[in-house]
Amino acid sequence: MLLRWLTSPAASTSKFSLPRTIRQLLERPPSADDATTVFGWIKSIRKQKNMSFAVITDGSSANGLQAVLLKGKDDDLFKKLTNGAAVRLTGRLVSSPGAGQSHELLVDQTGQVAILGECDPEAYPIQKKDLTSEYLRDHIHLRARTAHIAAMIRLRDSLSRQINSWFDSQGFYFVNTPIITGNDAEGAGEAFRLALLEMQHPAAATTTPPTPSEFFSRPSFLTVSHQLHLEALATAISRVYTISPCFRAERSLTGRHLAEFWMVEAEWAFPQNGVHGVCDLTEALLRSTVNEVLTSEDMDILWKEGSSARHQILLDAFTTQKPWTKISYTEAVHELEAAGSVQFEYKPKWGHSLQSEHEKWLAEQLVRGPVFVTDYPTSLKPFYMRANEDAQTVACFDLLVPHVGELIGGSMREERADLLKRQMAGIGGSEWYVDLRKYGGAPHAGFGMGFERLVSWVSGIENVRECTPMPRWAGRMLL
Amino acid sequence: MLLRWLTSPAASTSKFSLPRTIRQLLERPPSADDATTVFGWIKSIRKQKNMSFAVITDGSSANGLQAVLLKGKDDDLFKKLTNGAAVRLTGRLVSSPGAGQSHELLVDQTGQVAILGECDPEAYPIQKKDLTSEYLRDHIHLRARTAHIAAMIRLRDSLSRQINSWFDSQGFYFVNTPIITGNDAEGAGEAFRLALLEMQHPAAATTTPPTPSEFFSRPSFLTVSHQLHLEALATAISRVYTISPCFRAERSLTGRHLAEFWMVEAEWAFPQNGVHGVCDLTEALLRSTVNEVLTSEDMDILWKEGSSARHQILLDAFTTQKPWTKISYTEAVHELEAAGSVQFEYKPKWGHSLQSEHEKWLAEQLVRGPVFVTDYPTSLKPFYMRANEDAQTVACFDLLVPHVGELIGGSMREERADLLKRQMAGIGGSEWYVDLRKYGGAPHAGFGMGFERLVSWVSGIENVRECTPMPRWAGRMLL
Repeated sequence: MLLRWLTSPAASTSKFSLPRTIRQLLERPPSADDATTVFGWIKSIRKQKNMSFAVITDGSSANGLQAVLLKGKDDDLFKKLTNGAAVRLTGRLVSSPGAGQSHELLVDQTGQVAILGECDPEAYPIQKKDLTSEYLRDHIHLRARTAHIAAMIRLRDSLSRQINSWFDSQGFYFVNTPIITGNDAEGAGEAFRLALLEMQHPAAATTTPPTPSEFFSRPSFLTVSHQLHLEALATAISRVYTISPCFRAERSLTGRHLAEFWMVEAEWAFPQNGVHGVCDLTEALLRSTVNEVLTSEDMDILWKEGSSARHQILLDAFTTQKPWTKISYTEAVHELEAAGSVQFEYKPKWGHSLQSEHEKWLAEQLVRGPVFVTDYPTSLKPFYMRANEDAQTVACFDLLVPHVGELIGGSMREERADLLKRQMAGIGGSEWYVDLRKYGGAPHAGFGMGFERLVSWVSGIENVRECTPMPRWAGRMLL
Repeated sequence: MLLRWLTSPAASTSKFSLPRTIRQLLERPPSADDATTVFGWIKSIRKQKNMSFAVITDGSSANGLQAVLLKGKDDDLFKKLTNGAAVRLTGRLVSSPGAGQSHELLVDQTGQVAILGECDPEAYPIQKKDLTSEYLRDHIHLRARTAHIAAMIRLRDSLSRQINSWFDSQGFYFVNTPIITGNDAEGAGEAFRLALLEMQHPAAATTTPPTPSEFFSRPSFLTVSHQLHLEALATAISRVYTISPCFRAERSLTGRHLAEFWMVEAEWAFPQNGVHGVCDLTEALLRSTVNEVLTSEDMDILWKEGSSARHQILLDAFTTQKPWTKISYTEAVHELEAAGSVQFEYKPKWGHSLQSEHEKWLAEQLVRGPVFVTDYPTSLKPFYMRANEDAQTVACFDLLVPHVGELIGGSMREERADLLKRQMAGIGGSEWYVDLRKYGGAPHAGFGMGFERLVSWVSGIENVRECTPMPRWAGRMLL
């Protein structure tokens, strides 16, 4: 039991306790004289005549725990010690003579072995050998039992805890904004629409979708961004953020797109130093977050088979003392135009979107690290971004990172009601959104970061389908 | 800037900083000799001939900061100091002679006043007078500007941080499970179904919903619970939880139901002490979480106009050293039957669901506090709950709390594949869910807690529509 728990007086009367996980046992090993009980699954087992060596995992740590099991009289039990079986082992945690592990569990005649759940090793879909990503996507309910996916899941936990901690330290409040909405923040037009099927049981759902009725008295969609709602809260609470699901009914089947994904989004009033200040804030968030995980055991597992060059570029971004590069869109286009020797499929041109190949070149070739590209042409960006004085560009940025591309997009928001209304003309913007400016509209700023893309960048996992436990994309939804 | 930030060497090169919020200023007041700048909105203002007294809020704390503004020469500026206006004030933070506040901001001739966003006090919908819940629901985009809703939003932040912290201390990993699913954990049949409208822009959505196509090659729904997916992860990571949105297309318009709500759900392998152990774990979670906020300034605001009797019952639940009461469903029915003097609308009877009036009586009259009701009849509960040896009941519980009713539902999960299959017969359960038992299926348990109901219980806010920033219910979705 941990300190926090022991020091809570009101809770101390409860009889509640959980057994210690393998991670907890290895963090503070009990005495080798004490009986120690471990719960988990057999990850691999090597049987000899009178003893077995089994690696036990409970998912709590990157590396499992080796158990040395002396064979008792129960032959039947011994046979059931197979890959995938759930077991309870009682033995003594002793220093390990083997390399790569500090301790091992010795289960001798005084110990106990119990099978809590059998597993037929022939039928078990998660074999010890290497399994392809495609195979594991087809066995998505068992996928977290592989070391790689389990490490990704723990990495997600670490990253989100650090993000929460950083925002808290900066006076931001965590809020929940709606998933079902009538808005469309991006104007992308790729939103899922909701239909209500009165009392239809999913198990009995017909294959032909029926004609839906409206549950909310008007068309409703799954949100593509929480920004507009966060802005409403930032005009009251000043600093707010969320980590929340977003949805795009996108048909593109790239390694960077999911139909359901999580976004870290923040909005705050009274920002300092314009769009460069917004860049600085996101850099501070990322440095604080990623530095906490950069050398973890999970990262060792995730990068074991990754490109070491790519890994080095990641490490460099976080160990350098130098602030990350900022260049304006206009400068970026100049650099792209000047890169005469590079053959781009699309010719870079001011006023046109940066293509993936351009973004890649900027981050991977020109800068070899994260790069903020700021102040894009007004025509390329949504209506809510704040107009610059040149009347041609807006105070915005994209953070491009090597091998992933756009990780964060953000901007100063247009707080001047008259300018905002002009931008909204013809696109059917909402009156309530103008109200936020009409009544004490303060300067404010915000950004959104794709959480799976952050995981991809940090872990080196190339496809975002492996950056979330149970991905959804066009045509694909298991479970 | 906070300690965490200062001690991070790699980040120390960044130029990033935000101004201190009112909460941060009051927690560590700067010297009265230094110039201090405050950003916020005018909550109220009292003007005299040569000075004004304004309460400034930035949403960071329950109580704002009083500013004393000496009138300068700029009459026009002075006029624009109205309720709702966004301001930047520079002055000196001095000890306050007034009651109820430690410090006030003195803005004299050496100070500065800037209007960052004007607000017409006549047109401003958020007047100082008391505004009804209904009125504020109609002005949902401005609602967080009231002290009560802002306090609720900060309370949500505190509660979710404590929940995250407690789970972390117990070796649980935070995971994200799908929102879009083909499953139906409860069999409630009130799920929203998704329709795909190819490239339809929400702003241009027709009022007649069109016939949808399937995006995922099969019918897809918004999840009503994350339990089944969490179970899949708990058979790999051992201890997992999430705080995630859930959806019910429910037409009932009670103060306890929303169409979109947040759930705290956890699943873990290798539980101890059966269903009583599960109860104990949730009690420990709640005590740890709620004790952190029980006497906060936000709670003072939230309970100021609440029932003091109700408040006392809440305080008693968390200050008592005695573990919370547990009774079996069978005992509960006996107690209800024995309460001869109480006229229930529905006669309590073994095998029938407990009605709201029964749950109210158990928590508010019999126990006068939280009560775990355990071991309900099999026929009243979903297929996944673990059968007890009596073959009539399942190892489950509901936690009933005064004035809210069911806050948590949980159980041991049926880990025996043959018994599970028998329960699933005829309801079209999924093969993958049986797989979790087939391959190393370990004993496991879990629960779900409605987050808005927790907020309601703790804050005394009776209607869950005021327990989330932007509620959705049948027929109602603003923003």
